[in-house]
Amino acid sequence: MLLYEGKAKKVFKTEDPEVLRIEYKDEVTAGNGVRHDFMEGKGRLNNLISSDIFKYMEKNGVKSHFIERVSDTEQTVKPVAIIPLEVTVRNRAAGSIVKRLGFEKGAEFTPPLVEFYYKKDALNDPILTDGHVLELGLATGAEIGELKAAALKVNDILIRMMDMMGMELADFKIEFGRDNAGDILLADEISPDTCRIWGAGTNENFDKDVYRENTGSLIDTYTKFYEKMEAVK
Amino acid sequence: MLLYEGKAKKVFKTEDPEVLRIEYKDEVTAGNGVRHDFMEGKGRLNNLISSDIFKYMEKNGVKSHFIERVSDTEQTVKPVAIIPLEVTVRNRAAGSIVKRLGFEKGAEFTPPLVEFYYKKDALNDPILTDGHVLELGLATGAEIGELKAAALKVNDILIRMMDMMGMELADFKIEFGRDNAGDILLADEISPDTCRIWGAGTNENFDKDVYRENTGSLIDTYTKFYEKMEAVK
Repeated sequence: MLLYEGKAKKVFKTEDPEVLRIEYKDEVTAGNGVRHDFMEGKGRLNNLISSDIFKYMEKNGVKSHFIERVSDTEQTVKPVAIIPLEVTVRNRAAGSIVKRLGFEKGAEFTPPLVEFYYKKDALNDPILTDGHVLELGLATGAEIGELKAAALKVNDILIRMMDMMGMELADFKIEFGRDNAGDILLADEISPDTCRIWGAGTNENFDKDVYRENTGSLIDTYTKFYEKMEAVK
Repeated sequence: MLLYEGKAKKVFKTEDPEVLRIEYKDEVTAGNGVRHDFMEGKGRLNNLISSDIFKYMEKNGVKSHFIERVSDTEQTVKPVAIIPLEVTVRNRAAGSIVKRLGFEKGAEFTPPLVEFYYKKDALNDPILTDGHVLELGLATGAEIGELKAAALKVNDILIRMMDMMGMELADFKIEFGRDNAGDILLADEISPDTCRIWGAGTNENFDKDVYRENTGSLIDTYTKFYEKMEAVK
């Protein structure tokens, strides 16, 4: 039974209430849905990549909603109540922060910047301070600390992985959810859709900016990323 | 000698390097300078109100750049290097936060929200997280704590004063500067130009929203505010 359909994924109930099935769609969007395209093979690539990254996270001590990959385009996950925050980690300036705060593209952030954006299409996903997160009742003070620590841990793990692939992680966004016990789990997906990945020392993009900026084939790009990732695992 | 001219004030050097003279202009602006009007008597009212509020702050233990009022439209102040942050405290939702985050106008914030906005017209004064403030080098971690504590103290003092005047403080913005010793002092001005003040239990505005929303005479409003303030001091 279809529970929810998003821009890039469908979520289904299964017979087991502790298991959901996620199907990755062959679709790509940008600009909060303003651009929207069908792209054959994209669902498979995102599912393969995200599954392997969640497994890699688990191996490195980060708990997530991921259970297992069950087909080329599907994975099973634990049901969680998504916290409506996009948790963003930035190692280098790119995208919205360049426009919003005037950083030069590529400027290094030391330590990495952790930001919260409110997942609310009608408000255009505005940035939130910790005070806003508390006031909106989205997380407690302790949970805010937990989200930031988890985001920085994911950052460390991804940086090391991409370094082995000859790539550099500029930024990424992740989402978290609460399971039935109230524990916070990494959720949603991690893939070149949700990361900004640059060739180390080059201008090459291994992420959705290829689509946002029309600089090449997204399928070729994600295929190359997946092959490099498989080579270092 | 004129050192600097802003939207509502001129700053002059004096013979004493430890003393600047500020002249409040008969001008009013809104929307980052999009609206701009001449208004006879406004400079005097802002100068009288801001001078008395700075004196009241001093009496209540808040150090500021204010030295003394030297004429109807002028006050002397200590020279400080302004920190380019608008420090905003919100007790109730009004203005930008209603649009940006979807709070209902008048919604109460408990505890009060403290926000930092980057004073940068070209970027339209974007909101900053603590991480941005650090990354932009605008203040140290300890100074961020100091700014927030000072802002909340100013809030407490203003709330008590306005309560005696039968008014309620919805929000305000203040600025701070560093003196020659590196100490942080409250600076700029505090007046109905920089606060949102409501009649207690009424819809009446005692602030610049009267100009922003074209609901009455700003001079009459500020005169009424000043008279009530003088009556409770």
